[in-house]
Amino acid sequence: MKRGFGSDNHSGISPEIIEAIQQSNHEHALAYGDDEYCQEAERIFRQHFGEQAKVYFVFNGTGANVLNIDAMCRSHEAVVCAETAHINVDECGAPQRVVGCRLLTVDTPDGKLTPELVKTRLHGFGFEHHSQPKAISITQSTELGTLYSIDEIKALAELAHAHNMYLHIDGARLANAAVSLGCTFRQMTTDCGVDCLSFGGTKNGMLMGESVVLLNPVLDVDIKYRRKQMTQLCSKMRFVAAQYKAYLSTGVWRRNAEHSNRMAQLLLDALRQVPQAHVLYPVQANSVFVRLPREVWQSLQQDYFFYDWDEAKDEVRWMCSFDTTEQDIADFVAALRHHLSVHGY
Amino acid sequence: MKRGFGSDNHSGISPEIIEAIQQSNHEHALAYGDDEYCQEAERIFRQHFGEQAKVYFVFNGTGANVLNIDAMCRSHEAVVCAETAHINVDECGAPQRVVGCRLLTVDTPDGKLTPELVKTRLHGFGFEHHSQPKAISITQSTELGTLYSIDEIKALAELAHAHNMYLHIDGARLANAAVSLGCTFRQMTTDCGVDCLSFGGTKNGMLMGESVVLLNPVLDVDIKYRRKQMTQLCSKMRFVAAQYKAYLSTGVWRRNAEHSNRMAQLLLDALRQVPQAHVLYPVQANSVFVRLPREVWQSLQQDYFFYDWDEAKDEVRWMCSFDTTEQDIADFVAALRHHLSVHGY
Amino acid sequence: MKRGFGSDNHSGISPEIIEAIQQSNHEHALAYGDDEYCQEAERIFRQHFGEQAKVYFVFNGTGANVLNIDAMCRSHEAVVCAETAHINVDECGAPQRVVGCRLLTVDTPDGKLTPELVKTRLHGFGFEHHSQPKAISITQSTELGTLYSIDEIKALAELAHAHNMYLHIDGARLANAAVSLGCTFRQMTTDCGVDCLSFGGTKNGMLMGESVVLLNPVLDVDIKYRRKQMTQLCSKMRFVAAQYKAYLSTGVWRRNAEHSNRMAQLLLDALRQVPQAHVLYPVQANSVFVRLPREVWQSLQQDYFFYDWDEAKDEVRWMCSFDTTEQDIADFVAALRHHLSVHGY
Amino acid sequence: MKRGFGSDNHSGISPEIIEAIQQSNHEHALAYGDDEYCQEAERIFRQHFGEQAKVYFVFNGTGANVLNIDAMCRSHEAVVCAETAHINVDECGAPQRVVGCRLLTVDTPDGKLTPELVKTRLHGFGFEHHSQPKAISITQSTELGTLYSIDEIKALAELAHAHNMYLHIDGARLANAAVSLGCTFRQMTTDCGVDCLSFGGTKNGMLMGESVVLLNPVLDVDIKYRRKQMTQLCSKMRFVAAQYKAYLSTGVWRRNAEHSNRMAQLLLDALRQVPQAHVLYPVQANSVFVRLPREVWQSLQQDYFFYDWDEAKDEVRWMCSFDTTEQDIADFVAALRHHLSVHGY
Repeated sequence: MKRGFGSDNHSGISPEIIEAIQQSNHEHALAYGDDEYCQEAERIFRQHFGEQAKVYFVFNGTGANVLNIDAMCRSHEAVVCAETAHINVDECGAPQRVVGCRLLTVDTPDGKLTPELVKTRLHGFGFEHHSQPKAISITQSTELGTLYSIDEIKALAELAHAHNMYLHIDGARLANAAVSLGCTFRQMTTDCGVDCLSFGGTKNGMLMGESVVLLNPVLDVDIKYRRKQMTQLCSKMRFVAAQYKAYLSTGVWRRNAEHSNRMAQLLLDALRQVPQAHVLYPVQANSVFVRLPREVWQSLQQDYFFYDWDEAKDEVRWMCSFDTTEQDIADFVAALRHHLSVHGY
Repeated sequence: MKRGFGSDNHSGISPEIIEAIQQSNHEHALAYGDDEYCQEAERIFRQHFGEQAKVYFVFNGTGANVLNIDAMCRSHEAVVCAETAHINVDECGAPQRVVGCRLLTVDTPDGKLTPELVKTRLHGFGFEHHSQPKAISITQSTELGTLYSIDEIKALAELAHAHNMYLHIDGARLANAAVSLGCTFRQMTTDCGVDCLSFGGTKNGMLMGESVVLLNPVLDVDIKYRRKQMTQLCSKMRFVAAQYKAYLSTGVWRRNAEHSNRMAQLLLDALRQVPQAHVLYPVQANSVFVRLPREVWQSLQQDYFFYDWDEAKDEVRWMCSFDTTEQDIADFVAALRHHLSVHGY
Repeated sequence: MKRGFGSDNHSGISPEIIEAIQQSNHEHALAYGDDEYCQEAERIFRQHFGEQAKVYFVFNGTGANVLNIDAMCRSHEAVVCAETAHINVDECGAPQRVVGCRLLTVDTPDGKLTPELVKTRLHGFGFEHHSQPKAISITQSTELGTLYSIDEIKALAELAHAHNMYLHIDGARLANAAVSLGCTFRQMTTDCGVDCLSFGGTKNGMLMGESVVLLNPVLDVDIKYRRKQMTQLCSKMRFVAAQYKAYLSTGVWRRNAEHSNRMAQLLLDALRQVPQAHVLYPVQANSVFVRLPREVWQSLQQDYFFYDWDEAKDEVRWMCSFDTTEQDIADFVAALRHHLSVHGY
Repeated sequence: MKRGFGSDNHSGISPEIIEAIQQSNHEHALAYGDDEYCQEAERIFRQHFGEQAKVYFVFNGTGANVLNIDAMCRSHEAVVCAETAHINVDECGAPQRVVGCRLLTVDTPDGKLTPELVKTRLHGFGFEHHSQPKAISITQSTELGTLYSIDEIKALAELAHAHNMYLHIDGARLANAAVSLGCTFRQMTTDCGVDCLSFGGTKNGMLMGESVVLLNPVLDVDIKYRRKQMTQLCSKMRFVAAQYKAYLSTGVWRRNAEHSNRMAQLLLDALRQVPQAHVLYPVQANSVFVRLPREVWQSLQQDYFFYDWDEAKDEVRWMCSFDTTEQDIADFVAALRHHLSVHGY
């Protein structure tokens, strides 16, 4: 399938990542994480997130999010999140089934929680009929391509801790956020008081592999059993570790994220010349949300696969990837113009 | 870590598998399985298992087993299995947590269920206080390295169907069984009336990837949602499909399994000259279980990592892999002889 | 504790109910529902709800709701309900933990779903990342003391069935609704196309006991096992059946509900003379929701226990019971006037 | 149904218990346990079990057992119990579904665990592939009518604590055990180091109601939420509390248990004269297990309802109740003799 703007999951694997897998494909390694590749990768995680960071590799983002929720909450507790959060909308109820807890969702204008929005769900403490709020989960960059500033994250961490709650970041696209904010991972997480993190690499050039990063040591209780029991323990874990080592130590994460973010800006620039394409949110990472006339986006889908984000509102999502090229954008915008003109715009 | 006999999970990736990943690392592919690589792999699965076979790729063996159990049973139902079954012993209670069902275990002499053994658990039908037996699960080759014959599998399928139950095979090492029995996958599964299958590749030269193969179409209900909800949906699924395509279509599965089985026979032959090593079960696949004097196996573990299988009984497991060499076996047996002599044997 | 307006759960047991327990306390009866008292009660349920009605007795309303949800949905499916629904707000996440499914909540002005509101959640069918909408759950009378008309229920049932979904009624206060609408139970449920029902008696004069009433026979699959497994199977079930028999056959349900509804109207009438008490919703059953100056409701709570419903908005709930007296209301309104005057109103 | 020997759950309610319900049926009481009746009952529990005892009322024995397991274990942990334990055999997998944990069962000759038997399941600590043993659960009196001595309970508590585990007693028939051993509840539980207890009254003359008694304060964490979420929170809890108050403070528990135990001894005495009735276990509480010729027990079931306990072995269970009379036993034995003679014995 030709490159398009459907999802950063549609992209492939960066060459350094495949190379790393090959380099680690040597003799034997203990299974399930007790090998030198994992130890090395864990060391590099500590460089990026601080010495107290404890990493648990898992298979995918759903697994990372659910294991983090499981570390923070028991089933009678609840996670406050945006209505648009991936854990709420796009995991087919995995937190409910696997952890058994509630999500307390909040409508947001831009995919971002604020202390004021979160506070609307902070009640019923001590009342046994109500699920007890125990965690706040935010996504960085958000599902709508927006970003939390460092100060915004700090404020949410303070709110969480003031209520004996935890702050989790779903960082499936954390690299895009870091390069956009111009900060380190640590500045955006550990230093803000974030308690735990889903840190993804798959959307940014890895083959497969996500990680749970526990920044608050009190969460690090029995996680290895929980990971195994929820089916997220990888046997040949060295091949996840090797990918992360290459991803984090050679700058792949930065180069790929900078590129996909830049491509999104290029796309945004091009769309400024297309008055029928109404851009919906600030473009701060690698996605662009647009409202278009229905017949236009529907006929454009004949040329390119992409998701309608809210069909009723004619809102669609275009994602840039680490392998998007400037020519891809030029071709895509040309196709958009073509379909606009076909429909008389 | 030098090659040893701890687990076939300690081995790496066959070169054809890495090559296949690289070949599929090209442009974009739809995520989550709706791509040409997956379609091609599914076609090859149907060649091996019959036209009605429906495959769902997952991450690991635990995921494959739990998704199969979920397809067969609701939480008030039960799976009859050997006490030694991986689903009972080695998945930290994943079936209980994720499906919520019971396992009805049976002691066996050799890891193999028989109709007579299964019948001891087939009672209480219709009695609401008892979990309702709904499935039989066997492992082929078993956790103890033994094999079910085709007739034995047929007999269990008939017993299952006579009680409105299903027969599942945990085929983490199905390739080893097929080459040992000299039969096709289909002869051992579909043609025997097996209803569903966990079909593994990781232990036999793949990087990562297992599959749920539904042979009985009545089980194919809502599985895609269930897979997603239990965290086993892979985003860049083309890279699992590409591995399976290479594994199944180029003969990697056969070559690797034949090799590891042959290595186990070589090890067995060598052990016949070591009277202190009491071989416990027929060596029909790639593992050898041995009882040894405690001080011997414990000091041998200083040189080689392997599991004590039943510490109280001084029983240990040695696994051969697709990458085991004849020299590896010679070295290992020499080390064993050394530790025997150190301890005065 | 003196009688008040905190909850209809604060009331006791109607004398006919205790008498019925005593009358059934005779010799032995089979446990777990296979006795003559249960058979008789089931016959009476069929008189009220139609011949196809199948009743399963449980302990409490949470149990009834969760068992109904379990009959309608698997864990990857979802129930559309009002944000204010008891199943969403007041069961500490029981549906999530026990069934593992999602609730798709909708904000409502008055606790009532409409087809238009429900449709906002009916999307993503067939998309494996989204929990699949499978049921609509309404409460009759609602948690806010409002009522669905028969036509409104029919419209929701039609919407549900048009989408291959089910309609459930949480009828913890169904008797109050029936007397208020002047209809039979059947007219409000079976004849509207309702698929299943939680039918409560505890809030209206029974000691303990609720029931799951399946009106659509396709839901009646394996429920007895599910009830047992979720801990809701009563051993001496004859004593639940005997209560229901008395409740339904002697008119206790009607007398008690008419009384508590009438008391709510009396309270409403009295509040019309109290301008500082802003009544929030139509008073159609036995509860009255009022907005009051904060210092007033808080000091009134020193005399009477009742719940602030939304503390931030100074909204409180006052419930009438089958045992509320006209004097109780006079005393309560006098106390309210007293606290108003204390605070200078 | 005439009185028989099918189950102590077939009996009715002791008059003092109904009287207590009526006495508490007075004005209003706060729902969900925050009322004076509950406070009084809790005080009486502390008299019986010690000052640190914390009681949570629930609906039934399954609820009590599952809530206790939930207090002791998370889903990746396991409970060691007898193969014959009610939690293993007769709760349709409730612990698996609600808690998600494993039960590690042990075959026993008489329904009783011993330290030696338990130790066979105490391995794999720290190994993430294995459910971690965290509790021992015993039943007193056992499902087979046998008893643990005080010293035997102490030995199991010591074993549990030495492995950082808890000891739970399923005390559905704890009263029968106490009168048989001639000890107080406390001597058999708290003073032995028991950590928590399911304490039943329903089988011994109560209408409905069981309790979770936490003796080890470290278990008392968030239990109120867990009880609610697993559907076991009673609204009109005063009526459970009132029953327990009468049961524990007026000697009902003792009188009823002494009576049913004595009836079992009478039945045993009578059976000594019936050589075809082979009594299987020591009769130490209120049940008698007998092996009989198949045609005899099957035709006797035409006159009396009772359970075959192990049909394959022709083993049946006869339970005495608090309302069993000497005449009932004479009649039953006469019927047994009749059916023996019919079949030529």
